[in-house]
Amino acid sequence: MTNGEMTVYRLSPACDLGDVEEGKVYAVRVQGFADFGTFVYLNDRIKGLIHKSNVKTDHREGETLFVRVREVRKNGNIDLEEIVPAGYQMETVAKKLSSIRLGDLSEKVGRHVTVEAEVAQIKQTSGPTIFTIVDETSAEDAAAFIEAGVRAYPEVELEDMISVSGEVMLRNNRLQIEVSNIRVLSGEEREDVKLRIAEALELRAEPEDIPFMIESEVLESLKPEMQKVAKIIRKAIFTAQPIVLRHHADADGITAAVAVERAVTYLIRENGGDLDSEGHMFKRAPSKAPFYEIEDITRDLDFALKDFVRFGQKLPLILMMDNGSTEEDEASYRMAKVYDISIVVVDHHHPDESTDAYLDAHVNPYHVGGDFGVTAGMLGAELARMIFPGVESEIRHFPAVAAVGDRSEAPERQQYLDLISNDWSEDQCKDIALALDYEQFWLRFNDGREIVKDILDVNGEHDRHERLIALLVEEANLAIKEQLSASMPHVVEKELGNTAKLFTLDVEMYAHRFTFPPPGKTSGEVHDILCRRNEGAPVVTLGLGPDFVVIRSRGVLMNIPKMVRELREEVIGGGVNGGGHLVVGSIKFVEGMRESVIKSLIAKIEEFPVV
Amino acid sequence: MTNGEMTVYRLSPACDLGDVEEGKVYAVRVQGFADFGTFVYLNDRIKGLIHKSNVKTDHREGETLFVRVREVRKNGNIDLEEIVPAGYQMETVAKKLSSIRLGDLSEKVGRHVTVEAEVAQIKQTSGPTIFTIVDETSAEDAAAFIEAGVRAYPEVELEDMISVSGEVMLRNNRLQIEVSNIRVLSGEEREDVKLRIAEALELRAEPEDIPFMIESEVLESLKPEMQKVAKIIRKAIFTAQPIVLRHHADADGITAAVAVERAVTYLIRENGGDLDSEGHMFKRAPSKAPFYEIEDITRDLDFALKDFVRFGQKLPLILMMDNGSTEEDEASYRMAKVYDISIVVVDHHHPDESTDAYLDAHVNPYHVGGDFGVTAGMLGAELARMIFPGVESEIRHFPAVAAVGDRSEAPERQQYLDLISNDWSEDQCKDIALALDYEQFWLRFNDGREIVKDILDVNGEHDRHERLIALLVEEANLAIKEQLSASMPHVVEKELGNTAKLFTLDVEMYAHRFTFPPPGKTSGEVHDILCRRNEGAPVVTLGLGPDFVVIRSRGVLMNIPKMVRELREEVIGGGVNGGGHLVVGSIKFVEGMRESVIKSLIAKIEEFPVV
Amino acid sequence: MTNGEMTVYRLSPACDLGDVEEGKVYAVRVQGFADFGTFVYLNDRIKGLIHKSNVKTDHREGETLFVRVREVRKNGNIDLEEIVPAGYQMETVAKKLSSIRLGDLSEKVGRHVTVEAEVAQIKQTSGPTIFTIVDETSAEDAAAFIEAGVRAYPEVELEDMISVSGEVMLRNNRLQIEVSNIRVLSGEEREDVKLRIAEALELRAEPEDIPFMIESEVLESLKPEMQKVAKIIRKAIFTAQPIVLRHHADADGITAAVAVERAVTYLIRENGGDLDSEGHMFKRAPSKAPFYEIEDITRDLDFALKDFVRFGQKLPLILMMDNGSTEEDEASYRMAKVYDISIVVVDHHHPDESTDAYLDAHVNPYHVGGDFGVTAGMLGAELARMIFPGVESEIRHFPAVAAVGDRSEAPERQQYLDLISNDWSEDQCKDIALALDYEQFWLRFNDGREIVKDILDVNGEHDRHERLIALLVEEANLAIKEQLSASMPHVVEKELGNTAKLFTLDVEMYAHRFTFPPPGKTSGEVHDILCRRNEGAPVVTLGLGPDFVVIRSRGVLMNIPKMVRELREEVIGGGVNGGGHLVVGSIKFVEGMRESVIKSLIAKIEEFPVV
Repeated sequence: MTNGEMTVYRLSPACDLGDVEEGKVYAVRVQGFADFGTFVYLNDRIKGLIHKSNVKTDHREGETLFVRVREVRKNGNIDLEEIVPAGYQMETVAKKLSSIRLGDLSEKVGRHVTVEAEVAQIKQTSGPTIFTIVDETSAEDAAAFIEAGVRAYPEVELEDMISVSGEVMLRNNRLQIEVSNIRVLSGEEREDVKLRIAEALELRAEPEDIPFMIESEVLESLKPEMQKVAKIIRKAIFTAQPIVLRHHADADGITAAVAVERAVTYLIRENGGDLDSEGHMFKRAPSKAPFYEIEDITRDLDFALKDFVRFGQKLPLILMMDNGSTEEDEASYRMAKVYDISIVVVDHHHPDESTDAYLDAHVNPYHVGGDFGVTAGMLGAELARMIFPGVESEIRHFPAVAAVGDRSEAPERQQYLDLISNDWSEDQCKDIALALDYEQFWLRFNDGREIVKDILDVNGEHDRHERLIALLVEEANLAIKEQLSASMPHVVEKELGNTAKLFTLDVEMYAHRFTFPPPGKTSGEVHDILCRRNEGAPVVTLGLGPDFVVIRSRGVLMNIPKMVRELREEVIGGGVNGGGHLVVGSIKFVEGMRESVIKSLIAKIEEFPVV
Repeated sequence: MTNGEMTVYRLSPACDLGDVEEGKVYAVRVQGFADFGTFVYLNDRIKGLIHKSNVKTDHREGETLFVRVREVRKNGNIDLEEIVPAGYQMETVAKKLSSIRLGDLSEKVGRHVTVEAEVAQIKQTSGPTIFTIVDETSAEDAAAFIEAGVRAYPEVELEDMISVSGEVMLRNNRLQIEVSNIRVLSGEEREDVKLRIAEALELRAEPEDIPFMIESEVLESLKPEMQKVAKIIRKAIFTAQPIVLRHHADADGITAAVAVERAVTYLIRENGGDLDSEGHMFKRAPSKAPFYEIEDITRDLDFALKDFVRFGQKLPLILMMDNGSTEEDEASYRMAKVYDISIVVVDHHHPDESTDAYLDAHVNPYHVGGDFGVTAGMLGAELARMIFPGVESEIRHFPAVAAVGDRSEAPERQQYLDLISNDWSEDQCKDIALALDYEQFWLRFNDGREIVKDILDVNGEHDRHERLIALLVEEANLAIKEQLSASMPHVVEKELGNTAKLFTLDVEMYAHRFTFPPPGKTSGEVHDILCRRNEGAPVVTLGLGPDFVVIRSRGVLMNIPKMVRELREEVIGGGVNGGGHLVVGSIKFVEGMRESVIKSLIAKIEEFPVV
Repeated sequence: MTNGEMTVYRLSPACDLGDVEEGKVYAVRVQGFADFGTFVYLNDRIKGLIHKSNVKTDHREGETLFVRVREVRKNGNIDLEEIVPAGYQMETVAKKLSSIRLGDLSEKVGRHVTVEAEVAQIKQTSGPTIFTIVDETSAEDAAAFIEAGVRAYPEVELEDMISVSGEVMLRNNRLQIEVSNIRVLSGEEREDVKLRIAEALELRAEPEDIPFMIESEVLESLKPEMQKVAKIIRKAIFTAQPIVLRHHADADGITAAVAVERAVTYLIRENGGDLDSEGHMFKRAPSKAPFYEIEDITRDLDFALKDFVRFGQKLPLILMMDNGSTEEDEASYRMAKVYDISIVVVDHHHPDESTDAYLDAHVNPYHVGGDFGVTAGMLGAELARMIFPGVESEIRHFPAVAAVGDRSEAPERQQYLDLISNDWSEDQCKDIALALDYEQFWLRFNDGREIVKDILDVNGEHDRHERLIALLVEEANLAIKEQLSASMPHVVEKELGNTAKLFTLDVEMYAHRFTFPPPGKTSGEVHDILCRRNEGAPVVTLGLGPDFVVIRSRGVLMNIPKMVRELREEVIGGGVNGGGHLVVGSIKFVEGMRESVIKSLIAKIEEFPVV
């Protein structure tokens, strides 16, 4: 007691019974009266009794008194005696709170806590400012209020490390910290917390090391890169970063993407997310073109930047599947890179080396001596298991569907078919693949999530799945039959100098437009029929559009990319573009040069040797 | 008192004063002190006083005591005396609550109730689980909370019969039961409740038996089927099932659909729904094609299934108007049927018999010897009155508008015109019909609800209606005039062998595209002029597109569906499709076979006799 | 005391300490007990003490007593003595509240207030009815509750003058008056309030009179009309009227519109609005055509009317920028006028006089002897400064970007370039303009708000701006180069009789479609090259489409509007339309008359003198 004055302690709101010390003097507030004495509050949560024998003054409700703690009883009751000090000095008992982890928040409702975390989102509502904070265990919201609609703690920025104190509330029955203080960490303290969270996240994001569903050299060689992608995706989920998944809109691309969608859904749910936040955090978008069109990145960026401003949401991770590994994607990637957006690719198309400069990770069988026979659907399903192993039972048949849909001839195809042969026949897989293609055509560029889940039988409604498949396959085959009845009579045959049989069909003039099957698939169906009719012979089928040609071939050692390069140079003013695989692809040009381009194209085809 | 122990009763929270019995002993909780005694709670809502003369022990706030009830006074005051039992056994007074009806909930705010109802929606929010429950009187929400975002009572499924107990709250000023318990009913109990609700709903959904606005044999014959449709729609509203109304995007289809929209709006409102829920529960969608396109059912299904998963919302009832009765709709119906979705049709196009296999009800004049002259707008307005009789004054003129819009020549046309002749002339009806066609063209496939209501003068702004009609009619006629000035000079005339005059116009080459009037209407306008110019003569007008022909005719006994069937077989590789009525319709084909198809078509037209 | 009875006062809830008078008798309610007396409430907010020496009867909690005020102490404590009157009459102390202004509401939280205001929005929620009310200082919400989802005070209509009493609450942390009463003002009272608000608003809406950024006679002459537009926009913001800004989708139109968007954003924020309400209150929509298409007004009206019904929101102010001053806009304006919607135009295209009949204000350099060289971007930036002067630093460079983008040759161009020459070079401005054109092409008709802000460098991320511009300019130039490599070889040259060199290019046949640059810009780029190749010579370039021709020219004294008028009459069945400036524009026609129209067009061009 300096200066002969006694020290009177004031318990801060965060203090609890453990902070009350017998013998010390505290400032208290009168709560109410019983006939045996006066009840007082030591702070908002700690109550004690001054027995009437220990009362020194007249009391009024709400009045502040000083008391000495006589005893803290086992049952939590506190016996006090009133003190009237001659002089005193106040001291606040600032309980040294040890910070807790966000994952433990649900056990602390109604309690005052301190957490150290990273800022993952800052959303200004018309009321409080909501900070979504993330540590190594979870992501939760902290609400800070200064004035309606006014940004609280403006010094706090996205990705800062902060120490947040406040009471844990269930607001609208949702866990939330009602902030009493936020402190931006700096210097060593910041580095410590950052390191702690980063290291723990690093560990937590690490995918489990489980064996693939089949034995495959290609997959084994791809494993490290797949784990890298799995980890990037897991980390995005754990740090409240949205994901945009763009994929090729065919059976292979859909199975790949839905496998990951399922895994991510489970992971978000396990991480305490609800269905709403899933929708917010994950968007699957089938893509029209076999690459990332500028129009698509423009729309994705427009939305992401608006969400960033409006909801303080992180810019997304972009995940490309069955898509994304070629030069044609690079213009869009450059746009994304202006905003430092991360991009990962899981593709089985022949990759262009230059593209990797834009990618944080890139799984592609061509990198390890494989080829497109190891399809995106195979890669996607195995990746999904790395992200969330429990998803396996749902998606076990996806690789087989992808394999038959993409006509894979890799050894993996049969293994994946064998894996599920007790439950699914090869024909069933083909039916699913056809149903996906047909339904996606009508879905246009919507994800059609629930219908697609029924087609893939992951909705737990097997009977409905079967009825749906039966219907879609019937309708698809009817549509194909109708298209072929209009097209086949107009196929023109010619024998080329290299003995290949060339078939041409004007798919603009002699096919129904804007319906299923579209020109590319129509050309493919025609080609299949012609191959069967000309068994053993080399066959080239050209589907001629007004400003494009679809090329399908068998038994001719073509190199379509090379032809495109040459035509581009040779046909002056032709505006030739395009590409694809070596023997299957398409070429675009300006309509007015159609005849020249087709003539030159056929001349080039004629020069390739047949098998 | 078994074992010499006394029984101490504990009042459950639901109990009220009527459950307190004089002489019995109850466990109570100390609430507070007055100088004349201690106030105690018997449960959260019942308070009593232990006068200080009857106090046996020292009391502290919140402490539990035992008391005997001395007297329950008239004014509700309860006199108690404290009891200190030697030994005792507890028994909870579980008040046997008689269940109430949801329609009475608003009188029970703050009270504990029990209701028996059917589950109509299960929505998981980030806080509680919201069950929308329905009985024979109303639909209300019950909120159950276990843990934030966690599904409460996971055993409860859509369409279960349940017994719900809880307190009636105004939450955000909306009635809601805060669930204390849900029990899924089974066995006899379930059957009883189900039967009770079903029977009552059956009665409640039954439309009133009111006479039609006019006298019509066709309508009288259709009455039972119309009542069936009215009942299905009323039941959907009463059981919180959404409705998707797809209709032909012309004046006849719009009047039909808006009549039902108005009736449904009033019925929802009468049923306690608000504007928000109306929007959620009812969607009117004008359709591009004269049938249910696969793209449309795909979009409708995609949305409905997502709403089912996200909001636990029932799958919708599909209502087709001025549309839906032919083979061309069946592919979409098959899709709907995979999901057991109910479909009802109100149409006046010539129906295909096979279509009925997919329909729960089908109103069509052809079923009873009528024809397309009894238009969808007539049927829709009469149906709307069955759904909600009070709608009549608003929609009385709709049938006349539909009749002139669809050029009905049925006797019903004049009756409907006579019905409203005091308020609306035939010319005004024609203007409204033209305004609807013109405005819908620019609305594309939006419903344009408020503008359409102004055009139909159901917004109570008659002056604004008149200005709007004047403007739209003027603009429509200007646009038609502009189109005809470009088209008419290019009409080619030919006299056919059957003496009919054939006029052809290339509507792709000699008409403005993507503007009003579109090719079909342009052909119709040209045909009307040519008919006037060639009064008395048989006239056929063909509007030729690149891959379609629009056929309009007068005085030739054509059979378009028959021609289509024949052309489809005869023109190999023509991809011919199409149809319509006998003498008005359109034909599609692949562009490359245009000349062959047109030549064959004209040859066939030439073979029909003229009138 | 009439009849020997004393008067007992009851304090109304709004009363505070100042209304308590010593000596008077009040009815009070017992709140609780201390050992020195009884605490009572005089109303919900005023508490007093009856010392036990002044107690006359036995007290029970909640009981009503009568007391005389002995003393109101300095510290607010009130000493009371109990009174048991023989007879009495009650009188309520209805505190005469003087009404306050909405701008002071934030200081009155928890207090009862009365305000007089105009009704700007009436929104029925599923709970209370929300009235957005406006006075000369601010716009705030008043919530009135009768029954869940039921419209409170149905007699109150949009734009009524009302007196609202109620308590000021922070609901969800947003200021709101919880209405205890609303009274619709009428007669003199109404006129007084209306006048008061109108006069004050008039003053408040008045833009500051600041000098332009440059010296320009044209701008000085336009100042009064610009101030008028600024005032209309400011008034819309202050009175909670939404704004729809439609603008030409090129660099000039975008800079004009974004300048105003920025100013409005700041003004809303200053006016207490939050980001959400900004989105609601202001919509910027780039327009496809160089005029207000019927499809666009139809969509705008559809949305506005639905918002009016659903959210009781005012119909919007329509603001047209770089767009809107010609006959082609009038059909849409007529639609807007049916709904009494106000329209203001800021344009630099040659205006048609008839258009002004529809406009509330119209800024156009042609009105004051200027021409299109004073671009919309210049006008927009100066207008933005009038709306919110503080916006200047952000948008100072916009006029220069607009000037180079629109190839202005007015003297204002150089002044605006000089103004910013320390920060931005002319080449940088050109790059920004090209980047805007390129990005808007891919944004289609989305506003792309955040990307556009980065292109214009108003996001405070200069480094990102630079990377973005570098990328977009590179991509745009690559795309132009690719297009020209396909197109240039197909340009056909012809020397006309007037010595002008005519170049034609089929932009449908010899250019890539649906990509950047589109036909108009492709024609422009080709024309620029040809002008450079034929320096000094008169040059006309025609970009020929299937049903349109784009015209670019240099050195020929053409009059495109005149040619269009003549062609429209001379080419029977040609359906000719179009226009533009004198020497730059485009013509549309029906496809089948393409050759006739082009031939006639060239013949007419040949007749114009060259410079």
